[in-house]
Amino acid sequence: MSGSTLGTLFTVTSFGESHGPAIGCVVDGCPPGLALCEADIQAELDRRKPGTSRHVTQRKEPDAVEILSGVFEGKTTGHPIGLLIRNTDQRSQDYSKISQTFRPGHADYTYWHKYGVRDYRGGGRSSARETAVRVAAGAIAKKWLRERFGIVIRGFMSELGEIKIPFKAWQHVSENAFFAPNDEIVPRLEAYMDEIRADRDSIGARIDVVASGVPVGWGEPVYDRLDADIAYAMMSINAVKGVEIGDGFGVVAQRGTVHGDELTPAGFLSNHAGGVLGGVSTGQDVRVSIAIKPTSSIPQDRRSIDLAGAPTDMMTTGRHDPCVGIRATPIAEAMLALVLIDHALRHRAQNADVQVTTPRIAGLAPDGHQEIPSPSA
Amino acid sequence: MSGSTLGTLFTVTSFGESHGPAIGCVVDGCPPGLALCEADIQAELDRRKPGTSRHVTQRKEPDAVEILSGVFEGKTTGHPIGLLIRNTDQRSQDYSKISQTFRPGHADYTYWHKYGVRDYRGGGRSSARETAVRVAAGAIAKKWLRERFGIVIRGFMSELGEIKIPFKAWQHVSENAFFAPNDEIVPRLEAYMDEIRADRDSIGARIDVVASGVPVGWGEPVYDRLDADIAYAMMSINAVKGVEIGDGFGVVAQRGTVHGDELTPAGFLSNHAGGVLGGVSTGQDVRVSIAIKPTSSIPQDRRSIDLAGAPTDMMTTGRHDPCVGIRATPIAEAMLALVLIDHALRHRAQNADVQVTTPRIAGLAPDGHQEIPSPSA
Amino acid sequence: MSGSTLGTLFTVTSFGESHGPAIGCVVDGCPPGLALCEADIQAELDRRKPGTSRHVTQRKEPDAVEILSGVFEGKTTGHPIGLLIRNTDQRSQDYSKISQTFRPGHADYTYWHKYGVRDYRGGGRSSARETAVRVAAGAIAKKWLRERFGIVIRGFMSELGEIKIPFKAWQHVSENAFFAPNDEIVPRLEAYMDEIRADRDSIGARIDVVASGVPVGWGEPVYDRLDADIAYAMMSINAVKGVEIGDGFGVVAQRGTVHGDELTPAGFLSNHAGGVLGGVSTGQDVRVSIAIKPTSSIPQDRRSIDLAGAPTDMMTTGRHDPCVGIRATPIAEAMLALVLIDHALRHRAQNADVQVTTPRIAGLAPDGHQEIPSPSA
Amino acid sequence: MSGSTLGTLFTVTSFGESHGPAIGCVVDGCPPGLALCEADIQAELDRRKPGTSRHVTQRKEPDAVEILSGVFEGKTTGHPIGLLIRNTDQRSQDYSKISQTFRPGHADYTYWHKYGVRDYRGGGRSSARETAVRVAAGAIAKKWLRERFGIVIRGFMSELGEIKIPFKAWQHVSENAFFAPNDEIVPRLEAYMDEIRADRDSIGARIDVVASGVPVGWGEPVYDRLDADIAYAMMSINAVKGVEIGDGFGVVAQRGTVHGDELTPAGFLSNHAGGVLGGVSTGQDVRVSIAIKPTSSIPQDRRSIDLAGAPTDMMTTGRHDPCVGIRATPIAEAMLALVLIDHALRHRAQNADVQVTTPRIAGLAPDGHQEIPSPSA
Repeated sequence: MSGSTLGTLFTVTSFGESHGPAIGCVVDGCPPGLALCEADIQAELDRRKPGTSRHVTQRKEPDAVEILSGVFEGKTTGHPIGLLIRNTDQRSQDYSKISQTFRPGHADYTYWHKYGVRDYRGGGRSSARETAVRVAAGAIAKKWLRERFGIVIRGFMSELGEIKIPFKAWQHVSENAFFAPNDEIVPRLEAYMDEIRADRDSIGARIDVVASGVPVGWGEPVYDRLDADIAYAMMSINAVKGVEIGDGFGVVAQRGTVHGDELTPAGFLSNHAGGVLGGVSTGQDVRVSIAIKPTSSIPQDRRSIDLAGAPTDMMTTGRHDPCVGIRATPIAEAMLALVLIDHALRHRAQNADVQVTTPRIAGLAPDGHQEIPSPSA
Repeated sequence: MSGSTLGTLFTVTSFGESHGPAIGCVVDGCPPGLALCEADIQAELDRRKPGTSRHVTQRKEPDAVEILSGVFEGKTTGHPIGLLIRNTDQRSQDYSKISQTFRPGHADYTYWHKYGVRDYRGGGRSSARETAVRVAAGAIAKKWLRERFGIVIRGFMSELGEIKIPFKAWQHVSENAFFAPNDEIVPRLEAYMDEIRADRDSIGARIDVVASGVPVGWGEPVYDRLDADIAYAMMSINAVKGVEIGDGFGVVAQRGTVHGDELTPAGFLSNHAGGVLGGVSTGQDVRVSIAIKPTSSIPQDRRSIDLAGAPTDMMTTGRHDPCVGIRATPIAEAMLALVLIDHALRHRAQNADVQVTTPRIAGLAPDGHQEIPSPSA
Repeated sequence: MSGSTLGTLFTVTSFGESHGPAIGCVVDGCPPGLALCEADIQAELDRRKPGTSRHVTQRKEPDAVEILSGVFEGKTTGHPIGLLIRNTDQRSQDYSKISQTFRPGHADYTYWHKYGVRDYRGGGRSSARETAVRVAAGAIAKKWLRERFGIVIRGFMSELGEIKIPFKAWQHVSENAFFAPNDEIVPRLEAYMDEIRADRDSIGARIDVVASGVPVGWGEPVYDRLDADIAYAMMSINAVKGVEIGDGFGVVAQRGTVHGDELTPAGFLSNHAGGVLGGVSTGQDVRVSIAIKPTSSIPQDRRSIDLAGAPTDMMTTGRHDPCVGIRATPIAEAMLALVLIDHALRHRAQNADVQVTTPRIAGLAPDGHQEIPSPSA
Repeated sequence: MSGSTLGTLFTVTSFGESHGPAIGCVVDGCPPGLALCEADIQAELDRRKPGTSRHVTQRKEPDAVEILSGVFEGKTTGHPIGLLIRNTDQRSQDYSKISQTFRPGHADYTYWHKYGVRDYRGGGRSSARETAVRVAAGAIAKKWLRERFGIVIRGFMSELGEIKIPFKAWQHVSENAFFAPNDEIVPRLEAYMDEIRADRDSIGARIDVVASGVPVGWGEPVYDRLDADIAYAMMSINAVKGVEIGDGFGVVAQRGTVHGDELTPAGFLSNHAGGVLGGVSTGQDVRVSIAIKPTSSIPQDRRSIDLAGAPTDMMTTGRHDPCVGIRATPIAEAMLALVLIDHALRHRAQNADVQVTTPRIAGLAPDGHQEIPSPSA
């Protein structure tokens, strides 16, 4: 299957470069009858779009989405949904240097050897701009999951560089530029980013995403496990270098008596598994955590080579996020939504007729409350 | 595509339960002309097989593989290779309890709700026994990658529970039951495992895998990135809860000036990226690290519920690995090999005609030596 | 996707050569809870197996199938079903000539140039023996379609060489070696085949297949149309050179006033479309017709070239069907079943929530009777 | 995989309805370095576009294509190529009747039951307008096949209703509105169409397509045979009801001594197989023939039912082709090109290293001339 297509039944086929006329995608396999308009998608795009604070790139892209097909009289028809976002802020600049040199930490060297041709304007196809398409497609998935199953998918920043961000409350996430679930820590995050920028440097981040309300039974047992597909989807986001499900790398030093989530009629007593057992959802919160590397584009001289293999220095100027993790939360939420809707459809394809009388236990914490998502171990 | 099929062009389609007559797979898309016999595959299976030390399950399975097709006169024909491994040590036992109860940390509860039917003999389809199939298929991939490109894929245990295992030398890996790249630490690992077993408990582990010699240019830019497919493949292994590429979660607190691997005519000066940039291989070592949870089957009473939803206690007896991570190294190597061969074929499908004169820089360390694989940050 | 895998959700991955140890397949995606045993599959295999009359090959293959996985306590579990058929009647023979020459009408020349290696014992992978696997997998599909939806899939021979076989009654099909729906014509068919054999020649045939009871709504609108997938599945059968849906090539000279099937509350007034409109099933009988070429293996000298490109003569001896179409009916039925079950699952994946109050009209003939399947135009 | 995506490695993902804002597609997997501009694609679109003669629909659509991505400095980059065609001639009309009624011979009834919602403006997703997208994508495939392998793909009308059109010369095809390879017959075709229109009726047609210069070795042996994928691709075109390869249904009454194409050092002595043996190309011309049904939209009263299931009459007015086959030739060529490029890439993915010394014999006719494509039997 094409490397630009994501999913098995609910698919997203993406196209576009950062400095070409447009980016967009085709979303296929969407169930019919979902109420959908451009504003539904725009709301998610606006959460990700650049230029909204001094901590992110100052590129001005309205990211206005146009629905080209697949929606009629305000409802999805079951046919492919074409989405188009025109690029508007493509500053002319002098590419003579960049076109001959490979930027360290970028895809320049690898693309050049792979394709023998490279769109050197901005990142071309490797630009994080492509993630707007994921957010747009994910908005459709999110809406269907919420309306059909009551699933809520939410993410937040749990670490910014050396700073760990304790989870305080969901409502804070939308109240600051960092998607931090903690209002008190925001001034510290702002000062930290100002320092990074003053140093002409960049920094990494950790993002957590949680899906609540996922029914038991989604996923596959062997290869296309729910967690395997999540790992794939998350690692496909630009700059992601690590993925954890549930306790993630914390399991290395865990004992089985600690890790195995016990079951009671009132619910699971813990959620170390992160909502997936044997590749299949348990009904508990699906908990995912990702590591995002520091932006490779930094305004400092870096050692590199040119197309002839000769040594050179390379400074990346232009408008770049000093921490790409800051805008990554909506993207990670979108990827989780896209995996979940795909497995929702796959599950009922095979198992629509299954009936068991065993009660479904909720993903409850021991005290009966909705479990509190927390940064993984 | 079927959830039991892995890969796009070089595919593995797996079948079999731990207590059925056999497990096996169909390997399709293998290039023709590869010298292949059962001994080639058996050698890898023997590295993974149970019963080889007191630290692993005592189930006695010879895991003898039979090639059913796709090989003629000692060479692959390009047609699907059917592989069959008969199960031989299926002890009869009393399943009356287990058939009515969900073992904590297992797929029992999730499979039951998904399918409405469950093969309760051992793990059924969720058994780690299925991984023998991956190792068998991976042996073919490894052989082709080595013979065609000189690629070497090697793994080792880098952490066992709380014990970090410093990398000393590759040759040690095959000299102990743990796949530890360090002979001095082995007595400590043995004592640690004896303690875990005495506690009737289990423990997690971390495994690192390194592929050396991968040419620059394999992978895809957006969804089917080389690292995304690796994350998928690794997370699909039973008990894996986390995947890292290169520095992994270490990037969260890294600065861009540290992370971005600089290029020189003599090679990259570092490999924080883990051999993948923009989803495409750089020519450096591909470095992957995975977290493996402690075995869920432990001989202690655990709280659970039965099929009617009533509370019960559940003790898992039988022959189980106290640390599934101990036998995981050959599996992780196999998965990496399977992803790499698939991308080798995908790459040349699209880009066979590409020619660039830019010299390929090797994945060299600054002193000109082959870089030393190290446990990720 | 692998060239040996058929289907999107209900998949069949096939392996095996005519003269290797075994053939078989992995059937994945089967809904759980279907009662299934080897006898269910064997019954279909026995309809196809060789040696049952003087008009087919005298190779003696019991085609005994073994279920290796995916069935527990007599029911499918939802996991992959491994099927194995050992080859038993592989006569040793002198291959020195055949191994150096390309048999006309066979895949020898094309395989050789494609793979650079060839399994010259019998047809290797190109042998019609592979179709046993399709029949085995199709038996599972057929059973589920019948039990879940009441769908009946039946085929028959409609032409043998120059002889057109008028449809008389379904019950005759199982009463003769030709799958002819007409008992009176059987002596003529037998005499015709005896003449062909006496001429040391072979002959083509036309097979019709009909699926009754397919609900309205299965299929996809653009590429994976129900009829497109049927065409693919049928053309993938060895020796098939043409596929028709409904009136097939008869539409070329039809007028729109004749072709367009009118709708009434009592049902469609005709079925020129063959049960598919816009790629989606109408609820009428799905009618398919295929053309099967004469067997290429004939005991006469034919002009050919050898591996060095030099001219030579080639006579194919051995045990061959003088009309491969004679045993093709169960294969064509199986392929139709495999396409239908795949689309049944795909349809409910996307559209399980759809509810319309419009009455479904049956696929009725004008007089209110079940329509009579007839050879296509 | 998504029902709107065609192909395995070279993929086309289509979107759009006849009366929405636009149609388009994403072409992924194209080899990099191919010179490509909008004019290359427009030339093929202009061959198919409506309104060019009195014998086709008078809808005025310039079908102007915009390349949105994947091309940089006049060459393909290897990244997905987004293609966009705005709909411009969407006449407002009264849909009150059509929205409540199912047009006979159309997808209305099947879509309605499948999706529970229907875009009743024109054909919506079932409109033949979608085929513009195929032609656009096919133009890219054709160009690469021609430049890389010298492959020429050409089609023509071989039958219009009852009129058989003898093949005379390729150059005539572009000189008349029917794609008839015979200038003398054109007046008769025109008179015939005038008569059909005067009768307020429509008529079917047969189209032949031939690919010359296809190397030996493309295809797969079992399911994804070259001919199976061609059958799928052709049957996925609106209104196609039959597909033949080589002699097609003519093989039913053929003897093996006639059908099997003999080999000589100077080439094959005939091409009954149509350039495919065992699912793999022979190096001869690939010959395909398709049957296209008469247009369902005819300006006469037809019996139908409404959404409530009540009987009604339905006359389709508007601008429709009286013979959709007239504009089908470029579409069929495009589909053949798309299948061939996909198999070109698949072939070299697996078999790039294969080397045989056996000479390749050309697809020559007995007299040493390039074989003359002829309407199939």
